[in-house]
Parts: sequence; structure tokens; C-alpha cells
Amino acid sequence: MKIGIIGLGRMGKNMARRLFKGGHDVVVYNRTKEKVKEMQEEGLIGAYSLKEFIEKLDTPRVIWLMLPAGEVTDNNIDNLIPLLDKGDIIIDGANSYYKDDLKRAEKLNKYGIHYMDAGVSGGVWGLKEGYCTMIGGEKEIFDYIEPILKTLAPKDGYLYCGPTGAGHFVKMVHNGIEYGLMEAYGEGFELLKASKYGENLDLHKVAHLWNQGSVIRSWLLELLENAFKEDGNLEEIQGYVEDSGEARWTVLEAVESGVSVPIISNSLFKRFQSRQKDVFSDKVVAALRREFGGHAVYKKSEEVKKNIAGAGKVQAANPDEKFRR
Amino acid sequence: MKIGIIGLGRMGKNMARRLFKGGHDVVVYNRTKEKVKEMQEEGLIGAYSLKEFIEKLDTPRVIWLMLPAGEVTDNNIDNLIPLLDKGDIIIDGANSYYKDDLKRAEKLNKYGIHYMDAGVSGGVWGLKEGYCTMIGGEKEIFDYIEPILKTLAPKDGYLYCGPTGAGHFVKMVHNGIEYGLMEAYGEGFELLKASKYGENLDLHKVAHLWNQGSVIRSWLLELLENAFKEDGNLEEIQGYVEDSGEARWTVLEAVESGVSVPIISNSLFKRFQSRQKDVFSDKVVAALRREFGGHAVYKKSEEVKKNIAGAGKVQAANPDEKFRR
Repeated sequence: MKIGIIGLGRMGKNMARRLFKGGHDVVVYNRTKEKVKEMQEEGLIGAYSLKEFIEKLDTPRVIWLMLPAGEVTDNNIDNLIPLLDKGDIIIDGANSYYKDDLKRAEKLNKYGIHYMDAGVSGGVWGLKEGYCTMIGGEKEIFDYIEPILKTLAPKDGYLYCGPTGAGHFVKMVHNGIEYGLMEAYGEGFELLKASKYGENLDLHKVAHLWNQGSVIRSWLLELLENAFKEDGNLEEIQGYVEDSGEARWTVLEAVESGVSVPIISNSLFKRFQSRQKDVFSDKVVAALRREFGGHAVYKKSEEVKKNIAGAGKVQAANPDEKFRR
Repeated sequence: MKIGIIGLGRMGKNMARRLFKGGHDVVVYNRTKEKVKEMQEEGLIGAYSLKEFIEKLDTPRVIWLMLPAGEVTDNNIDNLIPLLDKGDIIIDGANSYYKDDLKRAEKLNKYGIHYMDAGVSGGVWGLKEGYCTMIGGEKEIFDYIEPILKTLAPKDGYLYCGPTGAGHFVKMVHNGIEYGLMEAYGEGFELLKASKYGENLDLHKVAHLWNQGSVIRSWLLELLENAFKEDGNLEEIQGYVEDSGEARWTVLEAVESGVSVPIISNSLFKRFQSRQKDVFSDKVVAALRREFGGHAVYKKSEEVKKNIAGAGKVQAANPDEKFRR
């Protein structure tokens, strides 16, 4: 079928390609024109203005937004509204907050425009392996756009999850789980490295081994195996981890629904801490130890040689002996 | 090559079968004779006493112990010592604590007996898919027993991890990671179930979907998919989770080496709590809330209808309103 895609970032571009290769007519639009041209040269239909984009689509128009979640997506929807007709369909494929979906669907509903939310997983590998896609919105519209989903996803790789927001909700929880899985691997490999066996252990070989029939084999562990292959001790990577919102929403959801999520919340908080160089709560605790126990603190200018992250062991017995006054 | 296996539990029996099918001469011994007989009928060499077992092996004898870790394994080693010759090899395939390996290797060394530690993963699926195996001990002995490992493991599925204890150490960390992965999935599915979309979500379909090209696809998620297929809401399963020690040792290791493991430790502690019906720390907190805030407590005999685990949501706004005096 004919579909328009707005947003030719890494994800949008490869999704457009996959749909084009799958036999669909794909109209693409992007703020920067170079990317439109690039796609045009590959055989896709390019549009250099929103108006041109709309004109090149057939009604009911099917428009897939693959833009940064939040304001950018909202602005694009607002710009589309006056150009669209009743019955047209907007699908948001970004990592949007499901509560934003509810607001958008309500707004678009007034204009007779259908809104579908699509949570898309698969990262940069999606072009080859297909995008695992979670869909929310009206069931009839899901049925209508199903040929697109069939092309985008691997076999069995898309699911109608329920009414508006359900797709992004399921994707949000997926990402929350992802945070937990990643930290579990992280802690395990740090323990290996910090142990007395660590010096002789080749972490790439361990990751490769664990991918052969062990209980913890997974796609993430395969990615980690790749990473260790390139850089066996991750020396070129800083222990600084960004987040893109989904785990925050997952924890908010846990708070609202009264569900205990120590693993997901700790995974999120660990990422926050990874970005801090000198953690204030640690200063507070160091100050308190000095106050009640006379334990030494490190002055701001002092170089701390003990227990540099991942580099070695602290002495378990009398850990403070050396520094006690 | 010729190998003797002591311990025909679920794991030992299938490992013996896999070795036999792989062309090795396998002598089996087990405390209860029925299992020996069963193996004998399948073509393996049965032994009905430890003496007979030893006599049926060629020197240097290669003996694989697949017994419960700890005392049982230690007792069997003590019984073997007087029957063995210098140069014989004992391999412990149980989930033993790596510190026990160090003690055993030292003890056996006095008799000239070699001790190897083998961490084995793969569970009940190992017979078919092979056992992922992590080995510690003398490198030359590893080289000598390699033909066995080649048969036991899937391709690339065994690794020499270092000196005595290294195999069980790497397996221990593997299991610690496993705890974290499992809890991450657990929390995610609980959030799905507790949400407003939960009623219409088929968790089996979600697990199946996530196994198709999503970032969190894994072997554990495939097992979970199976579980949801049989019982979509896990109604037949109690939320009571045992542990078999490895994560406790992982957390001990983290404490000793000064590595922060919030995910693995919380996963372990969550299991502990899953076994308690009325948690004492929660009683303490309920009592304190009554003392300073006059918040109601539930008497022991009262039935609590609110927020039954997994069954629904608490009210996020003024969660205590209804119960405030």
C-alpha cells in the first residue's frame, strides 16, 4: 500500500527502505532535504514540503511519524492537521509516552483523524531482521494498516496490544525490562573483572561461551560479545550512560499502580549515578562518617588511589584502617 | 574416552546419556540402584558399589561427580580418596562454592589426585542442546579431559577459565546474572498485568512478540513464553521462589571485592521476601506509621482486600485516605 514517512533519522530511513523493498509505495519527507534526496535516489518518492508530501499520498492517507518523541512529534501533528482529511491515519512510531498518545488521539478525533501508537524495537538491526512492533489504537485501523506492519516486522513480530496508548505502553515496559537486563549483565562482568580470576579471564570468550547453550544467552549478550571482541576491556568506553525516558515512565507507572520494581528502578538510578562525577549523597555520607566516627574524608584536591572503579579490590577486612585517624 | 559418573539425578543422568551417545565408555554409579539399572539397560556400564565403580575405570581414572553441592559432594570425595591412585582425576560438576574447590584441591593434592571444577549450565535442556561448561583447575588436566567436554557442550560451549575455582566462580556469576534477568522480566510482566491495558493483554502473545526481533529476546523469554502458553496468568503457580545458593555467593563476592551490585542483590532479596507470608520489617513499618501518624494498621485477623499482589492497582492519589483515622 501507499504510506508516507516523516522523519528520516537512523530508524525512519531504514524503516522506509524496508517498506520500499517490501513492495510498498513510500513517500518520504524530512526537515533536511539531503536525506529526502538520498532516499529518492534509492527509488522512494521524495517530498520537499509538507504540502507536497500530503499531495503525493492517496486518501485515506497513512502517515508514519518517526520523529523524536514529545514536542517535535506534537508540532508535526499540529502542522499536519490543517492539511489532512477526515479518515486519514497518523501512526506515531517514536518512543512516545503513552499518556501523550491519549491526549493526541483525543485531539485528532475532533478532526476525524485516526491516531495509532506504535512501539518499535530492533534498533539499528531492524532493516535486516525486521522491527518488533507493538500497536495501540482502533482495531479496524490496525486491520487496515496491517500490510505495512507485516512488511516492517519479522514473522509474528507485530501485535495489536489494545486501545490508544497500549502499543507505547507495552514498548515502555519492554524498555524498562531492557534496563534491568543490561545492568544484570553489567554487574556480572564487573564482578568477573574485579575478582582474583579476572586478570586471566577473557571477557569476550566468556560472553561467547555464555551464548552457547547457557541459561543467560540472549540477543543483548550477543551484542555484548561483539563489544568485547572489539575492545576486550571496554577501555575506549566511558562508564557514562544516557537514558531516553522509557524507564522513567516505567518507574512512574510502577509508582502509580503500586507495583514494586526494585530491579528496574535501581537500573534507572544506576544510570543517573553513572553521569555524576562527585555524588552529593556520597559527600553527605562521608561528612557524617567524619562527624560521628572521626573517619577521614578525602579533600577535594586529593587524588584517591583506592578502589578506582573496576580496577581492583578493596580490602574487605578493616576497609578503613589505612585511612582512620 | 572412559569416564565414570557418580550421581544420576536429572542432570547427571542426561550428561551420562550425552557422553554415551557421543561414543565414550561411561561407567555410572548412584546410591539408589534403580537408576544404575536404568542406565545399564540403555547400554551404559553400571556399577553397584564404589569399589566396583573404581575397578571398572582405567587409570588415570576420570571421575565426574554430579551430586548436590556441599556435604554430599565432600563425603563422596572422602570415600573415593582411599580407592584412588596417584594421577586420577576428580571433576566436580555440581554448583559448588568456588571456595570449597580451593579446599578440596589442596586436600586431594596431598594424595596426588587432580581436582577440576566444572560449572555446568543448560538445565533440563542440556541433553538435546549441550551443556555450557566452565572449567577451572590445572591446564594440562583440562587438555586431557577435553574430549569429554567437547561431547558434553554445544559447539564452542566450554571454556578453560583459569586455576582451581575459576570454573565454579564464572558459573556463580552466570547464575547471579540469571537472577537479575529473571526479576527484570518478572517486574515487566507484573506491570503489564497491573495496568489498565492488562485485562486485554495476552501475556503469552506479548512474550512471543518480544521474542521476534525485540531487544529483550532471550532464551529465558522463550521459556517464559512456554510457561504463559500453558497457563496464561500463571494461576497454577505460587509466587514462592527458592534459591540454590549461587546468588548468595555472588553477593558475598560483591561485598568482599567492594563491587556494587544493586540488581543482583535485590533479585536475591526479592526471592527471600517471596517466601514470607507476613514480613516482619513490614510489621515494623506499619507499627511506626501508627505511632507517629495515627495511620491504621490491619489486625492479624483482618482480611486485607486492597492491593492483593498482582490483582490490581492502589489509588495513587491519597493512598491512605480510605484508611486514615
